[in-house]
Amino acid sequence: MRVHTYLSPHEVDPGVVAEASAVVIDVLRATSTIVEAFSAGARAIYPTQSSEEAVRLANSLGREDTLLCGERKGLKIEGFDLGNSPLEFTPERVGGKRLVMNTTNGTRAFLTVEAAESVVAGSLLNLSAVSRSLAGSERIVLVCGGKEDRFSLDDALCAGLILQRLSEENGSDGPREWRLDDASRAVLALADQYPVDADVLGHTAAGAALVDIGLEADVVHCATVDRSGLVPEMHDRTIRLPEPL
Amino acid sequence: MRVHTYLSPHEVDPGVVAEASAVVIDVLRATSTIVEAFSAGARAIYPTQSSEEAVRLANSLGREDTLLCGERKGLKIEGFDLGNSPLEFTPERVGGKRLVMNTTNGTRAFLTVEAAESVVAGSLLNLSAVSRSLAGSERIVLVCGGKEDRFSLDDALCAGLILQRLSEENGSDGPREWRLDDASRAVLALADQYPVDADVLGHTAAGAALVDIGLEADVVHCATVDRSGLVPEMHDRTIRLPEPL
Repeated sequence: MRVHTYLSPHEVDPGVVAEASAVVIDVLRATSTIVEAFSAGARAIYPTQSSEEAVRLANSLGREDTLLCGERKGLKIEGFDLGNSPLEFTPERVGGKRLVMNTTNGTRAFLTVEAAESVVAGSLLNLSAVSRSLAGSERIVLVCGGKEDRFSLDDALCAGLILQRLSEENGSDGPREWRLDDASRAVLALADQYPVDADVLGHTAAGAALVDIGLEADVVHCATVDRSGLVPEMHDRTIRLPEPL
Repeated sequence: MRVHTYLSPHEVDPGVVAEASAVVIDVLRATSTIVEAFSAGARAIYPTQSSEEAVRLANSLGREDTLLCGERKGLKIEGFDLGNSPLEFTPERVGGKRLVMNTTNGTRAFLTVEAAESVVAGSLLNLSAVSRSLAGSERIVLVCGGKEDRFSLDDALCAGLILQRLSEENGSDGPREWRLDDASRAVLALADQYPVDADVLGHTAAGAALVDIGLEADVVHCATVDRSGLVPEMHDRTIRLPEPL
């Protein structure tokens, strides 16, 4: 098994992605919010490149059952229905709805890997479920949302934990037999060294920025490991829950 | 003290760099080669953006005492005098010479931080000397050369070791009192976890690429910690040894 980890979306190599199982990771907060939105009964989520594209798409889908969601500098985009806080995505607000989403880092990251064989949303909330979904893949690509195209410790730790879980499940066929690139080895080492809790997350750049604008509760929520068994999957730029077998 | 680490040159934030003491790190091999070139008696090194710029600059400096140095895919650029192997930079070849240099990652990294208050070349070869040169700085910027704008484990480990040495020298005013960004905390954690030797370096992407083209001796050489006390400094796009006090 080969593993490629991209520490921010600009690093993604389209040639590597084509035949891979890709995981997009934006712990604070896009992929955590996506997991919560499906827990709350959302029907589909459409990641977009820009707020303008989000508005156009929402209008063409029909506004009656479509909500516009997204943030700039952590806060809801003006005129949008919801921001990017997982706590906003309740069954009352999003149950049965389509969500068109635009965030600074996370939603763009999905579009960088749309050519992959499969693309799922990874977060601490669905850590073990995502790891299990990768079992048997020949080539795995982990894409960290990062923060404005820079390294983000929260996403790197989540990537490392996904690989750690995967190696625990694979038994003897662990990291020693895998072909890991430099960044995959680095995130595994980080995951070995750092505890993952709300305190560590709150001291990352992304976490501290949320605490600064009063969204500490989001950080605490996104730090919860394995609260969900859902693995949202993107096909044709649309994220859905997989069909039950 | 604030520390910012950029895991590849494209991440560099010019606003942060302006008042900082910057270290450019390209262990395999540009900054290691620069240290060796000065050990061998080179007079000055001129980093450039492209091979064309290198040729133009060498012609305008005068070719009689100027050498063209640089690599593409690890090998000497056609028509150049030297490649990018530290072992080539002997007193016979480079003593008293000016070197115009162009490499895939390292020389460009210097130009991204040219607005910094000071810019030095960091490698494993001059690790402790570079750390000592940073003592008393209020703002430190570490720029990893990376590999084609991606994360490179060798450079990240060297960055972490520079911070580790600096904390040992600062005594109680160690990392707990510093303001470290996400990437600085990550490289420190990596340096705690990884031994740095030729074996580890040879299994990074950059190291494996050198081994593949028969340059394993370069990897071994660049893995030598503290072989040099020289701290080459860049001013006005020219790298020199600092004047003796």
